[in-house]
Amino acid sequence: MAPTTTTKTGQPFDRAQLDQLLRRRMFMAQSFEIYGGVAGLFDYGPPLCALQANFVDFWRKFFVIEEGMLEVEPTILTPHEVLKTSGHVDKFSDWCTKDPKTGEIFRADHLVEEVLEARLKGDLEARGQAVLVPGDGEEAEPKKKKKIKAKATAVKLEDAERDEYSNILAQIDNYDGPKLGELMKKYKIKNPTTNGDLLDPVAFNLMFQTSIGPSSQSVGYMRPETAQGQFLNFAKLLDFNNQQMPFASASIGKSFRNEISPRAGLLRVREFLMAEIEHYVDPEGGKQHHRFEEVANIELELLDRDVQLSGHTNTTRMKIGDAVSKKIVDNETLGYFLARIQEFLKRIGVDQTKIRFRQHMANEMAHYATDCWDAELLTSYGWIECVGCADRSAYDLSVHAKATGTPLLVRELLKEPRRINEYVVDLDKKKFGPKFKKDGKAVQEAVEALTQEMREILSLDLKEKGEIEVPVSGVGDGKVTLGKDLVNIEKKERVEHMREYVPNVIEPSFGVGRILYALMEHNFWTREGDEARGVISFPAIVAPTKVLLCPLSNHEDFKPIVRRLGQKLRTLGVSNRVDDSGASIGKRYARNDELGTALGITVDFQSVKDKTLTLRDRDTTTQVRASEEEILKAIKSLCEGVESWEEVSARLPKFEGQQEVETKE
Amino acid sequence: MAPTTTTKTGQPFDRAQLDQLLRRRMFMAQSFEIYGGVAGLFDYGPPLCALQANFVDFWRKFFVIEEGMLEVEPTILTPHEVLKTSGHVDKFSDWCTKDPKTGEIFRADHLVEEVLEARLKGDLEARGQAVLVPGDGEEAEPKKKKKIKAKATAVKLEDAERDEYSNILAQIDNYDGPKLGELMKKYKIKNPTTNGDLLDPVAFNLMFQTSIGPSSQSVGYMRPETAQGQFLNFAKLLDFNNQQMPFASASIGKSFRNEISPRAGLLRVREFLMAEIEHYVDPEGGKQHHRFEEVANIELELLDRDVQLSGHTNTTRMKIGDAVSKKIVDNETLGYFLARIQEFLKRIGVDQTKIRFRQHMANEMAHYATDCWDAELLTSYGWIECVGCADRSAYDLSVHAKATGTPLLVRELLKEPRRINEYVVDLDKKKFGPKFKKDGKAVQEAVEALTQEMREILSLDLKEKGEIEVPVSGVGDGKVTLGKDLVNIEKKERVEHMREYVPNVIEPSFGVGRILYALMEHNFWTREGDEARGVISFPAIVAPTKVLLCPLSNHEDFKPIVRRLGQKLRTLGVSNRVDDSGASIGKRYARNDELGTALGITVDFQSVKDKTLTLRDRDTTTQVRASEEEILKAIKSLCEGVESWEEVSARLPKFEGQQEVETKE
Repeated sequence: MAPTTTTKTGQPFDRAQLDQLLRRRMFMAQSFEIYGGVAGLFDYGPPLCALQANFVDFWRKFFVIEEGMLEVEPTILTPHEVLKTSGHVDKFSDWCTKDPKTGEIFRADHLVEEVLEARLKGDLEARGQAVLVPGDGEEAEPKKKKKIKAKATAVKLEDAERDEYSNILAQIDNYDGPKLGELMKKYKIKNPTTNGDLLDPVAFNLMFQTSIGPSSQSVGYMRPETAQGQFLNFAKLLDFNNQQMPFASASIGKSFRNEISPRAGLLRVREFLMAEIEHYVDPEGGKQHHRFEEVANIELELLDRDVQLSGHTNTTRMKIGDAVSKKIVDNETLGYFLARIQEFLKRIGVDQTKIRFRQHMANEMAHYATDCWDAELLTSYGWIECVGCADRSAYDLSVHAKATGTPLLVRELLKEPRRINEYVVDLDKKKFGPKFKKDGKAVQEAVEALTQEMREILSLDLKEKGEIEVPVSGVGDGKVTLGKDLVNIEKKERVEHMREYVPNVIEPSFGVGRILYALMEHNFWTREGDEARGVISFPAIVAPTKVLLCPLSNHEDFKPIVRRLGQKLRTLGVSNRVDDSGASIGKRYARNDELGTALGITVDFQSVKDKTLTLRDRDTTTQVRASEEEILKAIKSLCEGVESWEEVSARLPKFEGQQEVETKE
Repeated sequence: MAPTTTTKTGQPFDRAQLDQLLRRRMFMAQSFEIYGGVAGLFDYGPPLCALQANFVDFWRKFFVIEEGMLEVEPTILTPHEVLKTSGHVDKFSDWCTKDPKTGEIFRADHLVEEVLEARLKGDLEARGQAVLVPGDGEEAEPKKKKKIKAKATAVKLEDAERDEYSNILAQIDNYDGPKLGELMKKYKIKNPTTNGDLLDPVAFNLMFQTSIGPSSQSVGYMRPETAQGQFLNFAKLLDFNNQQMPFASASIGKSFRNEISPRAGLLRVREFLMAEIEHYVDPEGGKQHHRFEEVANIELELLDRDVQLSGHTNTTRMKIGDAVSKKIVDNETLGYFLARIQEFLKRIGVDQTKIRFRQHMANEMAHYATDCWDAELLTSYGWIECVGCADRSAYDLSVHAKATGTPLLVRELLKEPRRINEYVVDLDKKKFGPKFKKDGKAVQEAVEALTQEMREILSLDLKEKGEIEVPVSGVGDGKVTLGKDLVNIEKKERVEHMREYVPNVIEPSFGVGRILYALMEHNFWTREGDEARGVISFPAIVAPTKVLLCPLSNHEDFKPIVRRLGQKLRTLGVSNRVDDSGASIGKRYARNDELGTALGITVDFQSVKDKTLTLRDRDTTTQVRASEEEILKAIKSLCEGVESWEEVSARLPKFEGQQEVETKE
């Protein structure tokens, strides 16, 4: 159920108004709109392209450069074998259910969720209560998926049923296909439009398939994540890093998921930009991080697995240092990245009251993960997963190493050589063939796979009886007897100078489009007294355009000044745009408030005379007037976050000459 | 035939050495290498990622921001209908020929080319001459495609045949499938490995196909160019630009082509980054450009269509202003972009002696183009098309408008209303139905389609005879007689206040990966006297890393200095990397010369004492020593191109303390 969110100025957030603005100002457009459009595909227009470019630039500085990560760009096209090994061919799917009569296909978890939510809403209406999902004394849990077609009708439910529904909804992400099928049967969930029966949920793989090369025999996919391409380069990256651990690779690029029925605008799309980090860490020693102290006191809102499984959704505010020492967050490296993610989101302008970290439940986790926390941002669509931070353990490197026979591991010279006492098996392989024939290999493998415990027992047997009995499945009666002539088992000491290990991977994975959408919701508001005038208060660091250059009119005298200002700002690295259209200054500023342009310079006749300019702040609409040099200095200092507008407007003379025309465009 | 190219220091260029460097320093790696690799797919490693990011950043500044272009990001996934309309489904293909016995598939033009080149080479050998393709007195024409398997055997050719071969090779891009089939028959071109017969060439579509959504009925493709997504947004972009013409959209993103048998490393790949501009211009008035004067004196090497058709490849050096006024280059806008492309390539470090602009021949042009010039860069693989600059006329906007019924045009308010006198047809439609029944619509359309000339004749007929005869194919005997009661044709005046037109599109299209590869070849050289020590002299503007921070050793005292320098350089926007590995200073500098790092700072014990640092120039290996403040100022000025190293090293004290250890790593 969509929550009622408010803007940063406390107004109720009006999604339709923002949507309309985003389309009108060409932040985005439905892809192929003149051909009727394709669901789940959107084109970015000029403002959103610039916002995204600034996001990527800052992300690179904040993570890649600041932490010395190794950026790589693997290809989008990926052959079958790679994604078979990684598990995506078999497991990267959603459960979908089909209406055999109409041919409609629904995503099963979304359908169950929507129908139960609609019934709860209908129940509330029947009880004559305000339409809020009944929770357990906490906030109503806004859900993150979009309406299918389920409409609420005012029907009262039994109290017990109502509680069951709430409980199911809190755990909806934890159910697999068979379980969803059960729920559909139990609660008589049908096609919401026709009330027709639905088939049992089946898995639908979310990867786009294609074939590579002219023969059509090489099946390939468009990658569902950038991670696999990074893992495959692990050995080369470790080399590039002079064999030093820990280190991270990073990649910014498009990934693709063939969503069953994408809705929710920019939030659930079939093609999206990801920025992913794969941080490789030694699994021994508790996965510590050498910069953890820098972040230990940062507080996060945490919603852990146990709370959700108990059917609740209340978060706990906690220092990340405490969360790690209490083992709520498993280790320092995971904790370090959670805190860094929050810091990054803060810097680009995400509302800090609309962020929480939610731990995945066991069945919800991707097939490769051992632990996972999502940074979720609150929007009018509910809490949206925007950054995943998973501990993928050694899963990926291990499976690729096994599939290819290529070692993907770290060799570490031990400071102190390690003495190891263990039972060693010696086989006389020459005698194996003649004795066991075709079973020789199976017997050999069974013997070599014996555990230390078994070896200890068998070494005694061998001493006492002169022979041992080893279980070998599929050979003879499942047991094979081996005499001293064939095998010897003895405790021996060996000295290890090197340690070999497969690193574990901590993966912070950013869904760029989702974050940008949340950013737009969080920073959108309207002028008091003129609610049709929208403003998007992007911080300067990501604002699509930092400075608008606004000559009072088309007068020739303004042109050289505007041109010079543009060049000077570019030299300072400050993006700027000229608006010399015929519209009034007020209209031009209103237009640029909607585009999120941080600052505006007006060039007027006084500028021609005395080289002074006015500088306008988007959020307060107040202006100052000073010399060109002073104004440029102020802009640089504002864009770099050295000064705030309050400080600048306190030290420079106020300007109240040209009042903004407060009219709608 | 691959040419012998030389490095910028005049050494013979050794491709194997550069390739080895690029792999060793992880500029790139074969994608999925541990799975055996996939032809035509490469992963970019850290240095090439950084080079590409700097390229994109500068491209955005040089084109998008400098010229106020509107950046858009359309999706990669594209539905069938769009690419059917654009012509790609039917025409975006290469000719391939198959060996029915072995199943091998060859690209037909490459095969013909390689076999004929091999025969020419064999002929030279048989004649005992140096192995250079015999031309026509000019340079040997190095071709841009890669070897198939054709090996030269020393067989002398007839003189006439030799000339035929040369002539064919000069026009190889001009042949279609049937013509290539003819050549294969005429010159007995077979499978070079088995000498088996080959089938006639058939068209192989180069797009990767997939299906969108769960039903598998929506065919889609991975786009072969970013252009179509830009065109579909034309109406919105024109709105965004306040209906002002001309303007340009731009897009940076991946495109895909399922090459038949990709070779030539980074030059012929299946997935590649494009940066494309679509500049919309009024087709009336000669496609002038308001900034053409700024570039008119820039000289380009031009290789026009006529020269190529005559079997030659000699270029002419010419000012772009002259080329346009002589109509060698069709119009100012096309000419403006050719000059800007050359300027851009120059700024990022492309060798200006290795660039030419080649005009496409008629059959070679893409199906949408009316004229096209390629910026080709000379590499060891021959002349490579790196930037295409096509005049796509009104083709794309027209076909999409027709297919969707959406007007994609410009409405321009005329300064002076236009009076138009023309023959107007009036039909009495009410009487049409009863008279012509099912043929009514066909007759009406035939009458309305009459040209002005025909209308003039028929209006006289109508006056004189009272009736007219109109040809209507498929109705009656192909002619229909209409009387005055049904139709009237008269000359009338109407006044037009608006003009409607479909803009033409000039499209500069950059293949980013190809340019980056050429850049690496052009800037690679080796130290004299130590040819194993490679250097890549990237200009600072694109160098993957601008400054290397090199503490003399791992000593604790150096760490705070290095950390402070890193922060200060980042604040100045100068990318830097620390190398505090145990290797000697000389080795670390040698490693970074290979990575193309422009400058190096050494922090030594004197730095701890007196805060001075040494600054080293990659290309000369000379060093200066000065205060931290002076060094940072010099770096900024070098990176911004304000000063050259000669100037900096003339004004700051030379440093000759730590000699570089000139040893191989």
